[in-house]
Amino acid sequence: METSNQYTILESLQSPQDIKTMSFQQLAQLAEEIRSFLIQSVSRTGGHLASNLGVVELTLALFKVLSLPEDGIIWDVGHQSYVHKLLTGRMQQFATLRQFGGMSGFPKSCESPYDIFNTGHSSTSISAALGMTRGAELAGEKSRTVAVIGDGALTGGMAFEALDDAGTYKKNFIVILNDNEMSIAANVGGISRYLTRVRTRPQYHRFKSNLEHAFGMIPVIGQPTVLLLKRIKDSVRRLLMTSTVFDDFGFTYFGPIDGHDLPFLCQVLERAKAINGPVLLHVKTKKGKGYKFAEDKPTDFHGVGVFEIDTGERNGSSTSYASVFGATMAELGGQDERICAVTAAMPDGTGLGTFSKLYPKRFFDVGIAEQHAVTFSAGLAKRGLRPVVAVYSSFLQRAYDQVLHDVCMQNLPVTFCIDRAGLVGEDGETHHGIYDLAYLSQMPNMTILAPANFIEFKDMLSYATMVHRGPIAIRYPRGGTSFETGKKFVPNLPEVVTEGKDVAIISVGHMLSSVVAAKEILEKNGVSVSVVNMRTIWPISPQFIKSVADAHKLLVTVEDGVRHGGFGEKVASYVSGQAPVLIKAHDSGIVTHGNRDKLYELCGLDAETIANDIITKLRQA
Amino acid sequence: METSNQYTILESLQSPQDIKTMSFQQLAQLAEEIRSFLIQSVSRTGGHLASNLGVVELTLALFKVLSLPEDGIIWDVGHQSYVHKLLTGRMQQFATLRQFGGMSGFPKSCESPYDIFNTGHSSTSISAALGMTRGAELAGEKSRTVAVIGDGALTGGMAFEALDDAGTYKKNFIVILNDNEMSIAANVGGISRYLTRVRTRPQYHRFKSNLEHAFGMIPVIGQPTVLLLKRIKDSVRRLLMTSTVFDDFGFTYFGPIDGHDLPFLCQVLERAKAINGPVLLHVKTKKGKGYKFAEDKPTDFHGVGVFEIDTGERNGSSTSYASVFGATMAELGGQDERICAVTAAMPDGTGLGTFSKLYPKRFFDVGIAEQHAVTFSAGLAKRGLRPVVAVYSSFLQRAYDQVLHDVCMQNLPVTFCIDRAGLVGEDGETHHGIYDLAYLSQMPNMTILAPANFIEFKDMLSYATMVHRGPIAIRYPRGGTSFETGKKFVPNLPEVVTEGKDVAIISVGHMLSSVVAAKEILEKNGVSVSVVNMRTIWPISPQFIKSVADAHKLLVTVEDGVRHGGFGEKVASYVSGQAPVLIKAHDSGIVTHGNRDKLYELCGLDAETIANDIITKLRQA
Repeated sequence: METSNQYTILESLQSPQDIKTMSFQQLAQLAEEIRSFLIQSVSRTGGHLASNLGVVELTLALFKVLSLPEDGIIWDVGHQSYVHKLLTGRMQQFATLRQFGGMSGFPKSCESPYDIFNTGHSSTSISAALGMTRGAELAGEKSRTVAVIGDGALTGGMAFEALDDAGTYKKNFIVILNDNEMSIAANVGGISRYLTRVRTRPQYHRFKSNLEHAFGMIPVIGQPTVLLLKRIKDSVRRLLMTSTVFDDFGFTYFGPIDGHDLPFLCQVLERAKAINGPVLLHVKTKKGKGYKFAEDKPTDFHGVGVFEIDTGERNGSSTSYASVFGATMAELGGQDERICAVTAAMPDGTGLGTFSKLYPKRFFDVGIAEQHAVTFSAGLAKRGLRPVVAVYSSFLQRAYDQVLHDVCMQNLPVTFCIDRAGLVGEDGETHHGIYDLAYLSQMPNMTILAPANFIEFKDMLSYATMVHRGPIAIRYPRGGTSFETGKKFVPNLPEVVTEGKDVAIISVGHMLSSVVAAKEILEKNGVSVSVVNMRTIWPISPQFIKSVADAHKLLVTVEDGVRHGGFGEKVASYVSGQAPVLIKAHDSGIVTHGNRDKLYELCGLDAETIANDIITKLRQA
Repeated sequence: METSNQYTILESLQSPQDIKTMSFQQLAQLAEEIRSFLIQSVSRTGGHLASNLGVVELTLALFKVLSLPEDGIIWDVGHQSYVHKLLTGRMQQFATLRQFGGMSGFPKSCESPYDIFNTGHSSTSISAALGMTRGAELAGEKSRTVAVIGDGALTGGMAFEALDDAGTYKKNFIVILNDNEMSIAANVGGISRYLTRVRTRPQYHRFKSNLEHAFGMIPVIGQPTVLLLKRIKDSVRRLLMTSTVFDDFGFTYFGPIDGHDLPFLCQVLERAKAINGPVLLHVKTKKGKGYKFAEDKPTDFHGVGVFEIDTGERNGSSTSYASVFGATMAELGGQDERICAVTAAMPDGTGLGTFSKLYPKRFFDVGIAEQHAVTFSAGLAKRGLRPVVAVYSSFLQRAYDQVLHDVCMQNLPVTFCIDRAGLVGEDGETHHGIYDLAYLSQMPNMTILAPANFIEFKDMLSYATMVHRGPIAIRYPRGGTSFETGKKFVPNLPEVVTEGKDVAIISVGHMLSSVVAAKEILEKNGVSVSVVNMRTIWPISPQFIKSVADAHKLLVTVEDGVRHGGFGEKVASYVSGQAPVLIKAHDSGIVTHGNRDKLYELCGLDAETIANDIITKLRQA
């Protein structure tokens, strides 16, 4: 913790309600303290920095104008909720940010009554806020729920579905578009270009002064008359050159508003509250605001590890599956002109930077739009191309139906490169990629591969894009757990790593290093172990499984995915009536945040627990 | 088939290319013949009528202006592709429409090279067409792919994702908005209201004559100069009062255009082809056009059974799960004010008509927007309400991530009433509801119920909405397969229907009638059978499963869902090392269209095959 004189106001906050009575001068100082605190704190723990520095004034304005916790704020995606957390009694917990047992980096109802709806994936906030608004109305509660959504998240289809529905709502409902011209990377697409045009309209400055003038006519105390409100609405709208796309959806649009001008933000918000019907406040913010290095390179300071405040320097990144993916794609792209790369707003996170520069015509960043990304790729494949969709496991969940209905049912050669498969660590429950094995293996024509090391991964990617016919997924973890065995990848052929007599352990992908460590523990305990690196996870040969089961006293499967619907359950269903099977997987689909090694221990997927469970099971048999 | 003089032109068509050289007079007669043929043919086979009658001229215009099959058309959803099928050599096959082994009611690449991309679910066409367009460009092919999307399907989020991406494309790309003011039911939402405003702009009539004038300046033969094109574009746009939402996305907007004025449609399309960049043609059509009963009641003639042409009369509907759902919801809505109903554009199909009239404030039709429907319901539940999402099984696939991320992870009491679970029959592969058991059972906190009869269903619905805490799904089939056992539903308690010694069959939901019939066959063959009606399909008690397995020589599971990830696989994983298990489920995730009894035979899920497979398995054991 810092010395207390650094955070005078922040530390004196007794309750979030205190903000309502502070002067704008005090709030300006508070904003400065918040920025300073966030930079200090995140430099030590890592976390999301740039997005939080951008919403300091916006958060303060919402706390000042709304009546929390009766009213509520839903932060889309949720990684910009640090200021919100800081203002709701969690300052001390920042030292434990994103750590095991510590404070989550996302809104969590279990942490605070001020976190009214959990978020994590993009574009959910408007739907959830509309539901809570209409729910409160039905329940007879006077409670307002405001959605705050970024311009990146706005490209997600469900945000439009929600705007469409909310557009016909007859009562007050406020959506704040937090427009920082970025998702994680720079935004793409028609709506992004459109927002740029709106942002740069010459009316912008006039808008502010005229609006202030119009507002000046209304008594702040007491209920403004309907007539006056109508007049404001008309005058505000006249100020804008044309109506916006949001007006077309049925919203009353205000903006663009300088998201760092706190008094004005409060003024506009106060008035937005009085409008009957849906309102969209277009707020312009700067990612990284107040910290030079983050302002200059907001993408680098989106999610960040420990860094040096004075220099902005962070630890260099080591080889990861993402970097191997990037290098291999660049190589394959040169060998085969059919290979295309498709990403949903994650060109850097997935490692496609080099490919996008070498083959710009074959690189497609479609924005935060996983559904479109997948069906668009199906279209590419129909014309003879070999699209590779690079996506994080938990985000591909958004496109379940498109993978099934458009790719698998038509048996099209689309390769899904699924990064962040298995536990991701600090981002926690909404971001762990533990469902893909289960949901992909139920789809027709789907092949799933999982590498245990970088060499296998490269071979798999080459096979998937240039040889395999039909849908194929390669799932690999965050970071670089690579356990090399030296044997060449052969499709549909499991690799027998070691041969033993008592127990056979079938390992899925990156679990191999833990499995081999477990084997060593078991051997010290006199148990002879076969280890199989499955490699092709789906489809599997029942004959192979049965033969392995028959040759051992116990068959064990180890996967970094949910148990139900996963690999182990399928293996067990093939050997029913024969050898006993021990399934090591995530028994719960909800895994908290924290250091991955800690989480694997928690989930019983560390070498020690795997070995112990096997010994216990052998005793029972 | 009709006498040949009725369909002179239709029957003389040698190839779709013939349309290109026909006069508009001939095409007008052809349009008349097509309508007459469709009404005659669908009155005998059933099928989708109203939507096809609405696109006769639009289809002819596309066939006249495009160069098929090098160019292609993607029909969103696809049930409006009958005219397309009729014009591509499939006239004789209409007698087998939607029947087992006959012609599909949706576009299928396996039927014709003119069916370039399979559709079935809503809102995929723009993504797929953009993928095929950019794919053709990369492959160096001169090939145009046009998407035709209804105003209903436009509310689906992925359509907006695709518009957003296509808005920045630099080359020609045509999207046709087929605006008939309907999805299956009347449209809702902000965009629908917006389109109504656009449709009724006073400029509409002027637009047409002025556009014709502008076009008159251009030589039809030869490539119009860029300058002239620019002039047209500007003059057309000036005719419109303001720019549209589509312009905001980056499209050049033309419209609204009378979708039954074939010469004008062709003229506009011809010019749209010459524009560099994305173009949206807003075409106004009338559902049911040319058949009075369908024009008057387009919802009734959307998907229709056999009917009398002269009177429009159809067979009365019998009791179905949907009708029991509707009646029960009306009843429960009166008992508990927390109960709300949410539908994604299917108020009638799901049976919510009565509820919507009795409790309009607690009824929410959000449009074709399954993702929003689910997260919106999560919001309602957060405010203490008990939302019931009524949805067809295959359409809920669209909201996989929302069910998992927003409902299950927060353990919210949302009830999913999943109609059309299992095989749906004539609609075929994209509409069978065979994935829900697999994808829902992998989600945390989810409970799944499946009734075998109407009484159980009512009890389950009452339990789910008023007693159960947490996410819960009730899956039930199309139609009314109800096998009554008389024993009251108790949560988590399987019902033992009959007790035997040799074989135990665990039945999931509506499979019970076939299972009991199989039991009778088995008993005639001297096999003693226990039958269990599982009722609570998930979670299940491993102890119960083990105890059943231990008491019999063979354990059999029967479910109307995919094998992989389904109920049987989970059961088998619990009894590994004990009794053999026979899993009866859909081994393939792709099941063709046709009469359901035929399909169950095909999939080995009829009583006869179930019994035979059990006898075979017993012999092996």
